[in-house]
Formats: sequence, structure tokens, C-alpha cells
Amino acid sequence: MNYKMMGRFIGKILMLEAAFMVPALLISVWEGETAAVRAFMWSIGTTALLAWGLTWFCRGSKNKFYAREGLACVGISWIIMSLLGCLPFYLSGEIPGFVDAFFEIVSGFTTTGASIVPAVEELSMGILYWRSFSHWLGGMGVLVFLLAISTVSGSDNGFTMHLLRAESPGPNVGKLVPRMKKTAGILYLLYILLTIANIIFLLAGKMPLFDAVCTAFGTAGTGGFGVKNDSIAGYSPYIQNVCTIFMLLFGVNFSCYYLLLIRQVKNVLRDEELRLYLGLVAGSILLIAWNLQGTYKTLEETVRHAAFQVSSIITTTGYATADFDLWPGLSKAILLALMIVGASAGSTGGGFKCGRVLLVLKSLRRSVQQVVHPRKIQAVRMNGQPVGEKILQNTNAYLAAYTIIIILSFLLISVDGFSITTNLSAVLACFNNIGPGFEMVGPASNFAAYGAFSKLVLIMDMLAGRLEIFPILILFSRTTWKRR
Amino acid sequence: MNYKMMGRFIGKILMLEAAFMVPALLISVWEGETAAVRAFMWSIGTTALLAWGLTWFCRGSKNKFYAREGLACVGISWIIMSLLGCLPFYLSGEIPGFVDAFFEIVSGFTTTGASIVPAVEELSMGILYWRSFSHWLGGMGVLVFLLAISTVSGSDNGFTMHLLRAESPGPNVGKLVPRMKKTAGILYLLYILLTIANIIFLLAGKMPLFDAVCTAFGTAGTGGFGVKNDSIAGYSPYIQNVCTIFMLLFGVNFSCYYLLLIRQVKNVLRDEELRLYLGLVAGSILLIAWNLQGTYKTLEETVRHAAFQVSSIITTTGYATADFDLWPGLSKAILLALMIVGASAGSTGGGFKCGRVLLVLKSLRRSVQQVVHPRKIQAVRMNGQPVGEKILQNTNAYLAAYTIIIILSFLLISVDGFSITTNLSAVLACFNNIGPGFEMVGPASNFAAYGAFSKLVLIMDMLAGRLEIFPILILFSRTTWKRR
Repeated sequence: MNYKMMGRFIGKILMLEAAFMVPALLISVWEGETAAVRAFMWSIGTTALLAWGLTWFCRGSKNKFYAREGLACVGISWIIMSLLGCLPFYLSGEIPGFVDAFFEIVSGFTTTGASIVPAVEELSMGILYWRSFSHWLGGMGVLVFLLAISTVSGSDNGFTMHLLRAESPGPNVGKLVPRMKKTAGILYLLYILLTIANIIFLLAGKMPLFDAVCTAFGTAGTGGFGVKNDSIAGYSPYIQNVCTIFMLLFGVNFSCYYLLLIRQVKNVLRDEELRLYLGLVAGSILLIAWNLQGTYKTLEETVRHAAFQVSSIITTTGYATADFDLWPGLSKAILLALMIVGASAGSTGGGFKCGRVLLVLKSLRRSVQQVVHPRKIQAVRMNGQPVGEKILQNTNAYLAAYTIIIILSFLLISVDGFSITTNLSAVLACFNNIGPGFEMVGPASNFAAYGAFSKLVLIMDMLAGRLEIFPILILFSRTTWKRR
Repeated sequence: MNYKMMGRFIGKILMLEAAFMVPALLISVWEGETAAVRAFMWSIGTTALLAWGLTWFCRGSKNKFYAREGLACVGISWIIMSLLGCLPFYLSGEIPGFVDAFFEIVSGFTTTGASIVPAVEELSMGILYWRSFSHWLGGMGVLVFLLAISTVSGSDNGFTMHLLRAESPGPNVGKLVPRMKKTAGILYLLYILLTIANIIFLLAGKMPLFDAVCTAFGTAGTGGFGVKNDSIAGYSPYIQNVCTIFMLLFGVNFSCYYLLLIRQVKNVLRDEELRLYLGLVAGSILLIAWNLQGTYKTLEETVRHAAFQVSSIITTTGYATADFDLWPGLSKAILLALMIVGASAGSTGGGFKCGRVLLVLKSLRRSVQQVVHPRKIQAVRMNGQPVGEKILQNTNAYLAAYTIIIILSFLLISVDGFSITTNLSAVLACFNNIGPGFEMVGPASNFAAYGAFSKLVLIMDMLAGRLEIFPILILFSRTTWKRR
């Protein structure tokens, strides 16, 4: 392992993180929140000092970087970033326990939105801002941001590719343009523009500026931390519908937007993943609205709540306008299934991803056909193009890792003795970066009841889910740390 | 498709089934159960007539048989066998609804043991016997029995191989001896001897003969239909322990017994699947016994119930001596995980199978190592032997099919509006051929509350689970029915 280069890289990330805390500090200063101001100053100081120390200590060394360094780098940066990112919560005393503070910021960076705070309206403005901003940072990825603004290792395109691949969601990361740096830049530009559009639409509905910015951060990152105790339920129907639409928009593969920009509309319309994603959304809304007959007064209200919750869950955002834990069995079952499916690859959403679902279904269909005609050889196709066997193998390995992690985490957090549905949905909600689950971790509740051990398990689940498992998994493999 | 040969084959299976109903008829005659006698006579007559008709109608045709015919044959025979096998239940009026009767016999043949009968003690002796005997038949497989006693298609070893592969559980069916007919014979001989041993041990505990025979059938097939309303809870601790041990024995790969017979003890002791299986059993018993502290009066009672329930669930039998739905969260979580793992390949048990779990874990470990060292090529090994890539691919396809079927079935049966835990555990209990689940389908309850549609979904799950998915899945594939 090229530890020095990893050290320098993590140093740069931390320097960025320190800078990203400054707006929250300014808000706290403006609002006169003394405890928060002190907490942010200490946090920024510690982070910057550590960043400077790492950069200095790890100076000089060759620029050789392999896949394992790239993956390990991503996993470790995210853990260190979270350890420092939770300092404002902890030092301000607004989240007294360190494990709780760590849980909250991991939930933020991984865009999960699972909270241990019982009443968010009691938090100070600076802390609320940092909490929501962590979603926005984590949504597109801090490393991707770094790639977009700097040349990390000279002109080494291979290294940046490894990093982008490790941090970006989806079975295969397409380069939009030949240079990865430029790809990262385009992605962030689209991300910023969409976020601004979201804020404008929310302001048009007379949402206060602070709420609009924080809500847009949570929507853009498909995070789900809100600034109100009842999430989005208290806002007007117009605002709820704006949220529904923007959640859906952020669950689309960003390369679709790039294709739209360069006027390749046909390719977007033909995209199989986009079709599956929109089809699932439409089908689920219809079924749930039908299943909810009689629960709400008007059809408008029924469809609005169905659409909001479906969009929130499939994009793995986690906002709520209704306590879906009280909905009938079929509606809950559909939401539970959507929790697993998740958003599109290359979006800011989590979950297994629609693209992977397609690949798994298609390769299963081929397996069935091969049982019938053992000698027939045929490629799996996606959008008309044959998919490489390596990608299919990786998708299957991903499914295996995904299943095993869910079962193991479920077993581990069962030590706290809660119900099967609570534990299973807690794991699914964290691992798929959604936020709320069912029963004791339902939308009207939070994760505070779990013990420290279970919280650590769920923290690892959130990280593994956001980073698509392997960057975290290889940290536990002996092979990674062996010398060549 | 070679329909004529398939027809003749199914004819033979049905003739066997008619013969297998005779003992139950004799019991009903002996006990003077008029309605049951009439029902069995009609059932035997119908089955035999259909068998004869099929054989006559499908006479003559070449003996060419491919994999798809073999698989489709297995799937179709099991469905037809069940449609006729449920006639005694239905015609005797003891299970009034046809879907219910069909559910009960599929549950029997697939060795699931999920019941829709609220009080089994009210059933007549003949019906109880047929119900338990269906477990014994389904455990090792009716087609395997046919292979053992007759030469189905001359000396066509390939065809019998296809059938045995399709009906026997596990990722790869080892031939014990070069000829499949002899392999099938050895398997059935071992099966019969173990069943007789089980009956003798039960009789030694002063269990009535009828109870002992039926209980042994349910144990041998890892089925779980009992003759008492409280399953095994009312019998003495000795009898409960005998059941625990025999359930575990029937969950072992039968080739281990064959190896013991030919004195290859070392190979048995080194078998990785056997080690995982026994390790999981021991670990689960310890953890649950620890978790159950204070629930029962003595340590003996605690360990006895823990051991019984663990053995019952991992072997997918489904007998119960305690209502584990009332146990604490961790114990329930462990049982839920064991439901998925299941017994050993090549045993009469269901589930995903310990052998497959090993293959999935090993190929995942290789994937992680390949991320770290992309150029290193290494084979996955099992018991020291390299495992073919084809088998690994099939195992991954199996995992994909397994996951998708569970999620889809869960969605479908959610129309009845029951809780998430009820529905999920109902699907797991049926698909893995276990029997009881949690909450409304827990060991103290039954499946009667589900609607006809959900019951049909669960029936397909039981069949797909018992036949390891593909023989049922290909029935739904267009490719199967296309002409060449």
C-alpha cells in the first residue's frame, strides 16, 4: 500500500471538509448561537490541523496507485471525514453522546437521513445547516468534488478513475467525457444547477429561505434530514409536490441530463433503467393509491401522499408527509420492496439500484434459457449493447455481498431485542441509505432506542451502502493490508 | 418437447402414487372410517385410471430426452401428483375447500409441513397417515424412487441423471456409484434404514405405534406434519430428544452415510458443508439457550427446547415443542436466519442449503481479493477440490432467483393485509419448506387465514423451493414450450 500518497489524499479531503464547515459557523455567528460557534471553531481548527499534519507528514513519495489503494482510500476517507464531521454535534452538546453524534453525521454524509435526534426543531440553526449540508456533500461525493476542482496526482487518469468508480453509485460508471476530471466537473455543475432550481421552486411556495436551502440539500443528496419534527408534512401541498418531483429528478442517472444537454434525447428515452425506474414509480403510486382508498378524504390527498412516499422511498431520500407505518399491508409491502430496489445508478440515490435489478433479471432469464438450451450462447444486452461477463459477475457478487450484509446486520442488531420488522427495516433503511423504516424506526420515530453496538453496526451499514460495499469490505480483508 | 415420453413417464409416477395410497386405505378400512374409505377408493381409482390412460395414449415414440424435458417433467409430475394426492382430503370432506386440500398435500409432498388444518386430532387415521406419508415420499423424491425400482428408458443414464439432478436438493448431485439407478437405490435404502431406526427409538420411548410411524415419516422427510395439535410438545423429553437427533441426522448429506458405510470416515470428517452445518447448529443452540435464560425452569429444559427448535428449523422440518414466536428478539432473529440457510445439500431438508452458503461466501471472498489484486486468478475450492466456474455461476443465478421469488411472493401475499413479519415469514417458511413462521403463521397457528390467491402463491413457493426453483421456473419460460 502506498500509505504516504493515501495520507496526502486524505489530508486534502479534510482540508476541504474544514472549509465546508465555515458556512455553518457563519450562520451560528449570525444567529448568536454561542455553544455552536465554539463547537464549529474547535471542529474547523482540529480538522484543518489534522489535514495540514497529514499533508506535511506524508509529503514526497511516488505516485503509483492501484485499485486497492483507490478503494481503501475512499473507505478510510469517509470514516475519518465522519469522525471529524460529528465534532460540531458533539462539542456543542446538542447531541451529547459521541456514538450518537457519529451516527448522525454518517447518516448525513451517506445521505441516509436516519436520525437519533428526537426533536430537530430544538437544534441550533448552524447545526441544522451542517446536518443538511452533509447530505448535499455526500450525495455526489466529496472525492468527486475534489476531483472536479484539483488535479490530485498530476495527470494520472487511472487513479481518478478508481476513485470516481469507488465513490459513484451504480454497476458501471460511464465516463461522460474522456477526461475524468471534466466528467466530475460536469456532474457537479448539473448537481448545483438542479439544487438551485429546487430552492427557487420551494421559495416560490413561500417556504422560508433557510428551510428551502436545507430541504433542497436533503432532496439533492436524497438524504432526508428535515428541519421540522414532522418532516415535510406541515408544508403546503404545493411544496410537498415540488419535493416529490425533485426527489424523482435526483433519482435519475445524471448522465441522462448530460445526454439531454447535448441533445441526445432519443438515447434518454430508450434508456432501460430510466424506464424501469419511472415504471416502478408509476405502478407503485397507482397500487398504493388504490390500496389507500378511504384512508384520506380526497383523491388529491391520497395520490399526493402515495406519490410523495413512493418517491421518497425509491429515491432513498426518506422525507415523509404521512406515517406510512400505519398504512395497510400491501402499501407497506410495496414500500419495503422499493427500499431494496432503490434509485438509478449514477444518481445520488442509494439502494440496490434499478440498473442492477435489470442486470440480475436479465442474467437470470439467460440462466433459465440456458437450462433449456444448454449449448446456446448469448450475451445479456442492456440498451442494445452486450454487457460484459465481468460486469455480470460483479453484479452477482454485489447481490451476494448485499444479501449477506443484510442478514448479518439483522442478526447483530437483534441483541437489543426489538421486533423482527423493526430490526429488518432498520437494516434496510440504513444500508440502502433511506432513513425511516417500520414500527419502532418508522417515520414517526427515530433510531435513538438502539444500543451503542447496534448503532455501530448500522453506521457500518450506512457507509457500506453509500460506497457500494467493496470500499468498506476490503478494509476487513487481510489481502488488502498484506505487503506485496 | 417430447410430450409422449413425458406422458408415459408421468403415467408411471401416477401409477406409483395410486399404489402408495393403498396403505392409508387399509388403515381407514381397519378403523372403519367410512367417508375416508370411500375417498381413498375414488382417489386410487381416478389416479390409476389416469395413469393407465396416459400410458396408453402416449405409447410409442423415440426415447430422446433433453435437459428441458427432464426438468419440465419433474415440475409437471409434482403438480399433477399433488392435484391427485389431495383428492382423499377433499373427497372425505375432512378438508372442505379444494385449494386448502391442494395446499395441504403440496405442503406434504414438498416436506413443508405448513398446514391449514386448525385441529389435526380431529382428522381420521387414514387421512393422518396419508398426510404424514406424503412427507416421506416427497423427502427423497418420488421420481428417485421410480428410478430405483425400474429402468425408465432402457439404459439411458443421461436421462435419469437429468431427473435425479432436478429432484435432488443441492448445488451438485454427486453420483455415489457410476450408475444412477444404483445411486438412487442406495439413497432409498439408507433412507428406509434410518426411518426404521427412528421408529424403533420412538417406540422405545413408549410412543404409540401409529404416532411413531407418522412422526418418523415427518422427521425423515424433514416435513413437520404431526398427529397432535401441539406437535411434539406433549411427548416426553426422551421422545423430544430422539426427534432432535433424527431431524439433525436427516439434514446431513446422505453421501456422508454412504462414505461411512464404505469406511471413508476421514472424508466425512473433513467435509466442509458438514462442519458448517454442525457448527451452525451448535452455535445457534448455545446463543439461544443463553438468550432464553429465565424463560424455562431448568437448564435441561432450556437446552432441550433450544436444541429442538434449532434442529427443527435448520433442517426445515417444522416440528415444535415450544412457541418460539414468544421467544426474545435475538432467538427469533437466529431462527429466521436459519430458515434461510437450511440443511445440507443431498439431504431431505430444504432451504438455500449450507453447501450453497459456503459457495456464495467463498466466491464473494474471491471477488474481494480480485478487487485488491485484479490480475490474480484463483479457483474457489471446496473440500480441497477446485469448484467449476459453471457451478459458481449457477449458484449465483440460484441466489438471484431465490431473492427475487421471495420478494415477489412477499408482495403478492401482502394483498391479504397481514403484517410484514407474518407475510415475510410465511414466504420463507413455505419457500424453504419449513412450515411454521412467525406471528400469524407461528408454531401455535396455521395458514388458514390467507385467501385462495395467497395460498396459490405459497403453493408455487413450496414447489419451487422443494424442486430447487428451476424445474418450476422453466415452466413459465416461453423458450421451454417453443418448438425447436
